Amino acid sequence: MTVHELLQGVQAGKRRHLAKAITLVESNREQDQKLAQELISKVQSGKETIRVGISGVPGVGKSTFIEALGSLLINQGLKVAVLAVDPSSPATGGSILGDKTRMEKLSSMREAFIRPSPTSGTLGGVAKRTRESMILCEAAGYDVILVETVGVGQSEFEVASMVDCFLVLMLPGAGDSLQGIKRGIMEIIDILVINKADGDQEKLAKLAATEYQNAFHLLTPKFENIPVQFATVSSVRKKGIDETWEKVITFIKALKKESLFQSQRKEQELNWFKRLVEDEVLRKIWNTVENKKAAEKFKAKIASGEISPSQAAMEFLNQI
Amino acid sequence: MTVHELLQGVQAGKRRHLAKAITLVESNREQDQKLAQELISKVQSGKETIRVGISGVPGVGKSTFIEALGSLLINQGLKVAVLAVDPSSPATGGSILGDKTRMEKLSSMREAFIRPSPTSGTLGGVAKRTRESMILCEAAGYDVILVETVGVGQSEFEVASMVDCFLVLMLPGAGDSLQGIKRGIMEIIDILVINKADGDQEKLAKLAATEYQNAFHLLTPKFENIPVQFATVSSVRKKGIDETWEKVITFIKALKKESLFQSQRKEQELNWFKRLVEDEVLRKIWNTVENKKAAEKFKAKIASGEISPSQAAMEFLNQI
Repeated sequence: MTVHELLQGVQAGKRRHLAKAITLVESNREQDQKLAQELISKVQSGKETIRVGISGVPGVGKSTFIEALGSLLINQGLKVAVLAVDPSSPATGGSILGDKTRMEKLSSMREAFIRPSPTSGTLGGVAKRTRESMILCEAAGYDVILVETVGVGQSEFEVASMVDCFLVLMLPGAGDSLQGIKRGIMEIIDILVINKADGDQEKLAKLAATEYQNAFHLLTPKFENIPVQFATVSSVRKKGIDETWEKVITFIKALKKESLFQSQRKEQELNWFKRLVEDEVLRKIWNTVENKKAAEKFKAKIASGEISPSQAAMEFLNQI
Repeated sequence: MTVHELLQGVQAGKRRHLAKAITLVESNREQDQKLAQELISKVQSGKETIRVGISGVPGVGKSTFIEALGSLLINQGLKVAVLAVDPSSPATGGSILGDKTRMEKLSSMREAFIRPSPTSGTLGGVAKRTRESMILCEAAGYDVILVETVGVGQSEFEVASMVDCFLVLMLPGAGDSLQGIKRGIMEIIDILVINKADGDQEKLAKLAATEYQNAFHLLTPKFENIPVQFATVSSVRKKGIDETWEKVITFIKALKKESLFQSQRKEQELNWFKRLVEDEVLRKIWNTVENKKAAEKFKAKIASGEISPSQAAMEFLNQI
């Protein structure tokens, strides 16, 4: 298939073409990458889309939540794509492929497109491919892109840096039984959802939401006039799913009202460019054989107190 | 004065030599820097020291707190040096020099050494000089180094990355009147002190401490077995100062028990080396005239959607 044919197919919303295009994006072959980049620079998405990151520890019920949310959105007449950033996912296809079998209802819907996490490469590589797949899904006419992550390593930050709204699922519980929020995550959360607010856990969930709310209250907000929002949900009973989506919409509307929606996306793209450049440059600095040797030598000297860090930095920079 | 003489003087704890050595460290002249680096790589501090970072918004009462704490420590027979990282400090000498006149009691004590923030250069530059001045103070026999910052820009993070224990002062208040904690700071706080717990504000301060405590309770701790500690203090009435220092000592002991004390310092030095190298490399990447031009060109192309961020990164890297 030529790039032109792919482009036509993707823009026409053909699943087969979209899947093939994403395969190109995910390929490590240089030739495929050239084609992928050509394709990505050509595709255009006319319509407004919403990108939502969804994170939470394994067992919090992400896939049940995504299945429920996705179905709700499709019933509202929207097309939904589900992608994932999961560096931990094995060659077998990663968490979401597993989820896919569980997301039976959603994956059977014509308006849903579910793609497992790219399974090879570093977190940065996985994120890059997901980011580009997202663009392709939007070009194929998907209105809402749900990007899931299991929150391994830095993956939440990767996902938060590619979506409009970052949503974190937590388990019910209160006081000492509340799960600690991973360091740094508090700062990137837009919507905190307590899942599994089922039956007698419902009270607990509401209490937890309040406790988290009090905690967030002490943080300078991410966006001055847009407070973090809190919801309690029962994915299995489909309770609170629509309210949660309402909160997402409210958040997005607030972004647009403050004209932060487009600016956040532009900023994300520019940061992405910056990141790709810096990652590559620093990789060269620290990972080429001779530099690695030199760095180790200086680190040893610093550890032994033989040389000050700044002296070592000066000498190291002169060497490379 | 030769480096040898300076070295002798500093190691003998002579104030005049220490001051001169720090002036060398702070100088931008290349020749001075060479001498400074030679000196720093030669000095040795036999005794165990404690490095405490102290931050808080203007008006929270840092200098009164430092005056009270410093006097307490000196009465315990310790020698105390007070340094500062304050990129905002004007050529006149910066906040601490102002404070110095207010830290009357402390600055009149023979066992205290108070040095204003380096007044020229970037935050990174200011931090580098303070970091090196700290080494010199320790070589001169100071047991406790208090590094103050007003918390402009990233200065708290700079200070936290050079001390054993990072202490933040907050004002009393409860509920809505609690000040929001600056983004990212929560993660680096070891001890949170509510200052100005005077008279009828004392209750409020205790309440605030509890509320902050509940908030921190939801965070995965910085050190697994070392919880963040909370204190309420009245610097003017010298109430709670000794308890606060007790908490610092408890924290330091806990670090040592987990054998994290030395490892944290080593790690800080290696990170410092890494940072100096990367800052310099990235400065070259983004700030040289032609690279800047090229980057701007690509950023414009990204903004117009003409090219994808990863495509732009590839082309930019090929150009430079």
